[in-house]
This record gives sequence, structure tokens and C-alpha cells, in this order.
Amino acid sequence: MRREGEPIRIMLGVNVSTLKGYTDVPYPYASISCTRAFEWTLQKIVRSNTSAFKLLFLYVHVPDEDSFDDMDCIYASPEDFKSMMSRDRVTGLHLLQYFVTRCHEIGVSCVSWIKTGDPKKVICHEVKRIQPDFLVLGNRGLGLFQRIFIRTVSDFCVKHAECPVITIRRRADEIPEDPADD
Amino acid sequence: MRREGEPIRIMLGVNVSTLKGYTDVPYPYASISCTRAFEWTLQKIVRSNTSAFKLLFLYVHVPDEDSFDDMDCIYASPEDFKSMMSRDRVTGLHLLQYFVTRCHEIGVSCVSWIKTGDPKKVICHEVKRIQPDFLVLGNRGLGLFQRIFIRTVSDFCVKHAECPVITIRRRADEIPEDPADD
Repeated sequence: MRREGEPIRIMLGVNVSTLKGYTDVPYPYASISCTRAFEWTLQKIVRSNTSAFKLLFLYVHVPDEDSFDDMDCIYASPEDFKSMMSRDRVTGLHLLQYFVTRCHEIGVSCVSWIKTGDPKKVICHEVKRIQPDFLVLGNRGLGLFQRIFIRTVSDFCVKHAECPVITIRRRADEIPEDPADD
Repeated sequence: MRREGEPIRIMLGVNVSTLKGYTDVPYPYASISCTRAFEWTLQKIVRSNTSAFKLLFLYVHVPDEDSFDDMDCIYASPEDFKSMMSRDRVTGLHLLQYFVTRCHEIGVSCVSWIKTGDPKKVICHEVKRIQPDFLVLGNRGLGLFQRIFIRTVSDFCVKHAECPVITIRRRADEIPEDPADD
């Protein structure tokens, strides 16, 4: 059991944007929906009570199984895999650095880590292992028709994660031309 | 737009327990899951930062359409309906009084109100009208098989409410013999 004065631990799943060049920040940067989920958590939950909460950022690196159409990247030697692996690790570090820096500026304590696998399963597995007080996830806010084809990570986690889950939709003015983008 | 210093408004849907006599409090009292959702909100979100939040309690009175098997209650005259109506109103007032009293003791500001209709639809309608920052609902934590037969209010609101929704499951030691009870 946690003691009375210890911070409430809020886990956030973060991922990369599918849109290049929509901000001035060099790519890769965080997706619109996970950025929104982070800002929402600060504005609506943490507020000025920074010492009462701790944010736990998880980035899940997805193994690049079917990227034969990505012609910049031909895996012909163990070295190619190594460079791909290190590239993906850099992506994760980039994202986590952004969130950790923001937390330090605001004065909220945080930790961040990278795992590899299927994001929805890894997030649920990490919830079980870490036991956060609750989980905040961004959500593209897709309609029912789109969701039949695009089963979202947040839908899965709402059903299966062993802690309360709150999903935060993007604001209407943030939704890109193709709402499946993020 | 709300100003910076104004409290974050957290809406909670509350309902009556289906179990009589499991506490010393006279029936009707709040369901296990909505009591848990309330306690969770205090412990995990509000904490000692009581002035930063305002709790909005909604009780939805369900019109008693098919209660012919309830032999204590035969509707033979307009007066019978009137007494039924007033009984249900008392139920709602009982519940809201409990939550409002708790909030006053703790020093969190709150409001509460009663609406009539289908709880899931009324909650979503009230979210649209009131625009809370988020909605907290209790959840019995039923398995997939049970949920096919018992479509829960929280499942519906997670999909349809126009604000973020967090559902709070009962603790394992709170689940009654029949988990459909609450």
C-alpha cells in the first residue's frame, strides 16, 4: 500500500506523429493526440499541485516488420538492422526527452522508459507491472465507421488495462485533413 | 473559455445500490461502484487541493415502467403515481444528500441535481449541456460474457459522452456474491 503523502502516479503512453512538417520542431515529434493528452493532464489534473503527482511516460517501439516499401532502408546485413534499431531508439528518446524536459520546467516529477512490441499489449503489460493510479491516453476521436477498420490502442486499453483509463480526444481545430493521421 | 483560476469541474453519475442491508446506513444508499468512483476521485484527483475542483453530482431517476411484479405498489389512481414519484424523488435526494454532505465535510465545492430518463442518455445529454471537464463513472467490472447481456451505462458513456470519461471499477473485496449486483 502506498503512503498518504506519496504522489499519485499517472501513466501516459506516447507515440510519434504520422504527419511530417506540421510544426517547426524537427521530426520525429509526438503525435497530436498524445501531446493533447499530456497537456490535458497538466491543465485538468496536475494544475499547480505539482508535488502531488508523478508522470510515467512509456514509449513503445514497434518492430518494423513490413517496411520493404521503405526504399531508404534495405536490410542486407546485421549492421543494417543495428542502424535501424538505433534509429528507432533515437525516435523514442527524442519523444521522451520532450516530455521529460517539459515536466522539469513545470516542476512535476517524472520517469520515462522505452519498450518494444505491440503498443496496446505492451501498455497493458506495463500497467500490470508498474501499477499506476491511472492511465491517460490520447485518442484520435474517430467515428464508428473508421474505428471498424482502425482498431485503436486506446479502445483496447480501456477494455483490458488493469487500472482506470481516461482517453483524451484531439480538439476540433487540431484534427488533420485525414483524421486517421495523428 | 474558463479562466485560469476557476475550479476544474468533475461530473459524477450516482445511482442506488441493488443490495439491501449490506451497510448500517438505512436503504436507499449509493451503489458500491458509484461510491468507489467518488472515493477514487477524492483520493486520486482532488487530494488536499480542495479549492481546485468542483464536483457535479447527477442522479438519474428511471421511470418505473414495468414494475407490475412489485406487489407493494399497484398504480390504480393518480395518487398512487404521485406517491411513487415522490418516493423516487426521496431516493435521489437521499443519495445526493450523502455526497453533498461528504463534500462539505472535506471542503470541496459541489452541486447536485436530479433528472428523469434513461441514465446513459441523460448523462450524455447533461455532459453536453453542462460541459464538465471530465466525467467519472463507477463500473461493476463485469467480464465480456456478462457485458453482452448487461450493457452498462459506463460503456455507453465512454463511447458517446462529449467529454473525457474515466470509469472506476470496484475493488475485488467489494464485489458482491452476484457481480451484477451493485
